[in-house]
Amino acid sequence: MHDKLIKYIKKYVALTPGDIALIEETFTYRKLEKGELLLKNEEICRHQNFVLTGFMKTYNVGATGKEHCILLVPFERWASDLNSYFNQVPSTVIIKALVDTEILQLNKSSFDAILDKSPAMERFFRKMYQDALCAHHKKIIDTLMLSARERYINFMKNYPDITQFVSLKDIASYLGMTPEYLSNLRRQKLYK
Amino acid sequence: MHDKLIKYIKKYVALTPGDIALIEETFTYRKLEKGELLLKNEEICRHQNFVLTGFMKTYNVGATGKEHCILLVPFERWASDLNSYFNQVPSTVIIKALVDTEILQLNKSSFDAILDKSPAMERFFRKMYQDALCAHHKKIIDTLMLSARERYINFMKNYPDITQFVSLKDIASYLGMTPEYLSNLRRQKLYK
Repeated sequence: MHDKLIKYIKKYVALTPGDIALIEETFTYRKLEKGELLLKNEEICRHQNFVLTGFMKTYNVGATGKEHCILLVPFERWASDLNSYFNQVPSTVIIKALVDTEILQLNKSSFDAILDKSPAMERFFRKMYQDALCAHHKKIIDTLMLSARERYINFMKNYPDITQFVSLKDIASYLGMTPEYLSNLRRQKLYK
Repeated sequence: MHDKLIKYIKKYVALTPGDIALIEETFTYRKLEKGELLLKNEEICRHQNFVLTGFMKTYNVGATGKEHCILLVPFERWASDLNSYFNQVPSTVIIKALVDTEILQLNKSSFDAILDKSPAMERFFRKMYQDALCAHHKKIIDTLMLSARERYINFMKNYPDITQFVSLKDIASYLGMTPEYLSNLRRQKLYK
């Protein structure tokens, strides 16, 4: 059950048998059904969640009731509200399973314990957060520098099967365009 | 010269005399004059830069020649293009000193070496990147959930002296509003 996570972590750091045993003891399995909420708005985020199979999204709902899709999370990515998790404050996002989804969860006290016991895991999380910062930076620059059309083409190159899991409304919201504009781009079949 | 950085790091982790000696050997001092570029567009970012005194901004210039202010960096904050630094790819931002500015710089090979030698520094960077991710998340949520007026009030509460260092044009760009709208908000003296 932990094999995918261990393989993922090994892309960043070497793991000893002791590290692997710690990971297996510490990350707990959970299954969510399509449409189930992993985190509700204003709930404290108790876990960092690694997606094994399925697809999740993080979003919030503005004052006018409009949904904003913030992150689309395929398998082998993480779905959490880190600000809520680390600072124990109410979440500002909702996390939802878009299809039946399996995850491995790490609570805050286990996170602290595993980093105290394993230098490899401390390094893994440093590198993983480092990569997440680079990805955030890239998204900001893409939003500023690329046209909506270019952002859509890049997105579909990276996630060619995404429409199996994610509605066009969510994809449009994530890419910062209207659903009508996205439909227009799709009719042009730009990414094939 | 390294006292401010050491004090800053100690907010995150305890340091041994050996760690402190390493920091003093590894981070190098540089002074920039007002208007000087620390990083040019498409140059590879060779350093993580800790601001000791002064003020910097990171920005880029769109296809139409319009400047987008991405980050405002006061003293005791970091100014770098991490994606360029870690992946050795051309930078997508420009970093400029807005006033005379002093920094401490850490190049990539020194970064790798200090993390191999000091578990405290590995933990420091993990925690610092973690905080940076939380701050990014908060900025995304604020942009979605708060009005321009609320974002401006919060910003001025956090940085009451900022207009000494940063032009109104840059503040408007950073907050995602037009300079005219910012001028209108300022006339209302909302934050006093």
